[in-house]
Amino acid sequence: MQRIPVLKLGDYLLVTIQVELHDELALTLQDDLTLKLSRMRVRGLLIDISALEIVDSFIGRSLAHIARIAALMDASTVLVGMRPAVAITLVELGMSLDGIHTALNVDKGMQLLRAAAAGR
Amino acid sequence: MQRIPVLKLGDYLLVTIQVELHDELALTLQDDLTLKLSRMRVRGLLIDISALEIVDSFIGRSLAHIARIAALMDASTVLVGMRPAVAITLVELGMSLDGIHTALNVDKGMQLLRAAAAGR
Repeated sequence: MQRIPVLKLGDYLLVTIQVELHDELALTLQDDLTLKLSRMRVRGLLIDISALEIVDSFIGRSLAHIARIAALMDASTVLVGMRPAVAITLVELGMSLDGIHTALNVDKGMQLLRAAAAGR
Repeated sequence: MQRIPVLKLGDYLLVTIQVELHDELALTLQDDLTLKLSRMRVRGLLIDISALEIVDSFIGRSLAHIARIAALMDASTVLVGMRPAVAITLVELGMSLDGIHTALNVDKGMQLLRAAAAGR
């Protein structure tokens, strides 16, 4: 079965989404993430979408969902690597990614998460 | 066109291979990596294959190829996240991943790269 790997980098989890998220895959990702959040000491979650050419409302909702679950489990979520065309489309479609912070790339996202963790 | 994202994490590059590597994709990855190695200050390269259920001789050769190129460009390569079944198959097929170090996961791979960089 297809699975999106969840990588642990120190106190953070990194997910790189490279394939189209369909129903089942989004749920599997959600399960894998919550399991890791509950078992490991995790301060933040980085989701890289630099490989995605399209972010539709389903993907947007799934990501917002994951961010809300992570927040309940005491981890911040930062979305990184959004392509310019994706950002334009999101705004044109009036989609808001509520509760998700964004950063240009993994390095900057990591900085944001570290700053958030230090500020708590 | 499909592309495997190359993420920069501090002084290291991280590649998560989630889809089957075919000819063109392997070449694109090689090009992207060499471009980043030449432009950025990179000390090491982590390749995560935890999503791969099969590592055939083509993928093995491509990875060994990338590791050799990275070495010429002054970066070490560590392969992480190999599944037990993949390790068993590689040995049974008599495939050796020459010139590639392996580590259990990204955290341990990162430790290995840091130790290698400190020892130079």
